[in-house]
Amino acid sequence: MKGDGNIGDQEVSTSDAVEAFLADSPVSGEAVADSVGAFIERHKSSGNATSSGRATGPGLGRPIVVVTSGGTTVPLERRCVRFIDNFSAGTRGALSTERFLEAGYAVIFLTRSGSLQPFSQMLPAADPPEIIDRVAMLQPPSAAAAAGSPGPAGADGDSVVIRPEHMAAVARVLRARQACREQGTLLTIKYETIFEYLTYLRLTSELLRPLGPDVMFYLAAAVSDFYIPWSELAEHKIQSADGPLELSLQRVPKMLGELVNKWAPQAFTVSFKLETDQRILVHKAFTALHRYGVHLVVANLLHNRKDVVTLVEPLAAAAAAGAAAADYPAGDSAAAAAEDAAEGVRTVVLQRPSAEPDIERLLIKEVAARHQAFVSEAAR
Amino acid sequence: MKGDGNIGDQEVSTSDAVEAFLADSPVSGEAVADSVGAFIERHKSSGNATSSGRATGPGLGRPIVVVTSGGTTVPLERRCVRFIDNFSAGTRGALSTERFLEAGYAVIFLTRSGSLQPFSQMLPAADPPEIIDRVAMLQPPSAAAAAGSPGPAGADGDSVVIRPEHMAAVARVLRARQACREQGTLLTIKYETIFEYLTYLRLTSELLRPLGPDVMFYLAAAVSDFYIPWSELAEHKIQSADGPLELSLQRVPKMLGELVNKWAPQAFTVSFKLETDQRILVHKAFTALHRYGVHLVVANLLHNRKDVVTLVEPLAAAAAAGAAAADYPAGDSAAAAAEDAAEGVRTVVLQRPSAEPDIERLLIKEVAARHQAFVSEAAR
Repeated sequence: MKGDGNIGDQEVSTSDAVEAFLADSPVSGEAVADSVGAFIERHKSSGNATSSGRATGPGLGRPIVVVTSGGTTVPLERRCVRFIDNFSAGTRGALSTERFLEAGYAVIFLTRSGSLQPFSQMLPAADPPEIIDRVAMLQPPSAAAAAGSPGPAGADGDSVVIRPEHMAAVARVLRARQACREQGTLLTIKYETIFEYLTYLRLTSELLRPLGPDVMFYLAAAVSDFYIPWSELAEHKIQSADGPLELSLQRVPKMLGELVNKWAPQAFTVSFKLETDQRILVHKAFTALHRYGVHLVVANLLHNRKDVVTLVEPLAAAAAAGAAAADYPAGDSAAAAAEDAAEGVRTVVLQRPSAEPDIERLLIKEVAARHQAFVSEAAR
Repeated sequence: MKGDGNIGDQEVSTSDAVEAFLADSPVSGEAVADSVGAFIERHKSSGNATSSGRATGPGLGRPIVVVTSGGTTVPLERRCVRFIDNFSAGTRGALSTERFLEAGYAVIFLTRSGSLQPFSQMLPAADPPEIIDRVAMLQPPSAAAAAGSPGPAGADGDSVVIRPEHMAAVARVLRARQACREQGTLLTIKYETIFEYLTYLRLTSELLRPLGPDVMFYLAAAVSDFYIPWSELAEHKIQSADGPLELSLQRVPKMLGELVNKWAPQAFTVSFKLETDQRILVHKAFTALHRYGVHLVVANLLHNRKDVVTLVEPLAAAAAAGAAAADYPAGDSAAAAAEDAAEGVRTVVLQRPSAEPDIERLLIKEVAARHQAFVSEAAR
């Protein structure tokens, strides 16, 4: 049954549904394909081995991870005024990207416009004018002269300096972005709609296919489950005069199976599950493993996703990665562990170390170790 | 018929529908009421007459405008993962707020979290890490020492300075925000959902009612037309396993009539219409004037709203404001002008002057002049 979905009364091949979805999409991915192609060229040349000493595949300077982030939108009109959105600030994707860069990866960051960007969290505020207020301050002409640095003046003759208490944070952001530019390790691709997201994901995965197991897909974006096909959308804004609004949304065909089985069958694929109800979370993660053949599922609950994540993986992969259950706090996962054995999967609960501001450092360490084991296994 | 809506087969009093909506809302506005109350106290004291020399009402230091901005969301679950959103970057509200501050108003800025904030547009980028890259740069220790200002160093010993080419822009932002802080002229209230927006708007308007005509409501937010009552929302995320999703949304009761007739009946109210279809835009603006009794409608088309707006107002008000049609480029509004006479309204088309980066300076000049005439009229 892998790759097939049961939609309504009809058995519809997921492949056909996916093809129909993409054929209906109004998005052209040409510009994206060009930049992804150039990015791959840069990183597959074997001359640029990194200082991280990672075991990378033949001809590949760095392993490449595609990090998807933010929530996809579903337009309710063609000239889009209203849309259905999936809640996601993009924190997981942005922080994970920072950690993947630290770990020696080149990152293709497929991100919703306006969601959190890498290195944002190093800054003391989120909104642009507030950020400026927090990190910078006016310096009157007299003070600047006393310091021996009149510098370029503002309209009133005073200049602007970085506040001493934020100097280190701002310098960190600048250095991190400078390193990405110089090494060309971060490619940011922005999307808004489900149509853009899936079009870009498919073309990226197909372009990366020749690189085999050195590629990881880390699918942290919150992808819409339901949509209205472009061909059924009204051209203009829906009018409110005619009583209640009845919307009938179709299921978005599941792309995971296509990605794993067709678009990039040799890559290492990590998918995410976000639920609000603990009771169905782990079960849904099992389903993703068995139905779609992903290599690892990161399961989150909405209310504590910044402190706890559960890794769900096939038992064989866990053994290959040399992961030991004793390394992790067990939490209340005893019941889940019993279910594991029957289903041939195992769960590992990661908790944010109290000394760490975020859980992503630990998470990416675990994920990268599994990818490394996967690459070694594939090389045998 | 004013204040009544025809919903389906039933005549339902809008007042009753509005009360039912607000009673069903899960939002408490206590913290917002406290800050709005303090803001009003500060600005109604007559001792603080402004330098702008505006004719303001008795006991009021500055006229107050409530600017609403951004789009409201409609949750599809209580623990909100999915929601329906209205497209709005918040540019109109943010830029208008800057112009109202320049014109001597105190502004209550009711804004969607994450949408554009005042003074953002003065900066060279929108995303936080990119903004830092654009306005700041690392200065190596040697350069800093040569300039005589070693200053506080980053982790690698280098410091950060503002780039000369952006010094003036950053200084402008800092001075503008500093002025708002010192004079207490900008109160920002953030909302996400339609429930928060309408709860905050009602309590703000009721608190402002005693100030009479000196208060303006400038309702630029994109407010949802349809919603699902809180009492009907599922607790957890809607599951996608069970085939297509059928959503039945109810109309959000029209609050405009309540605002104009009950919550703040003496205030000057400006509402906005955004459509994608020129043919229905002006007609809908007429309806807002006649059905809800607003004093001015700003009508926009999605595709050219940054270059052209159409003011729609009752003929009497236009005469009082001394506005002359000859002052404005007529565009293709001849047909609309003919219709005006029959309906007792007039339309004025504003076009962005080519020398101006935005249309808001012209728009706020026009709006403020009409408010001033309205205040003078009320004082007779």
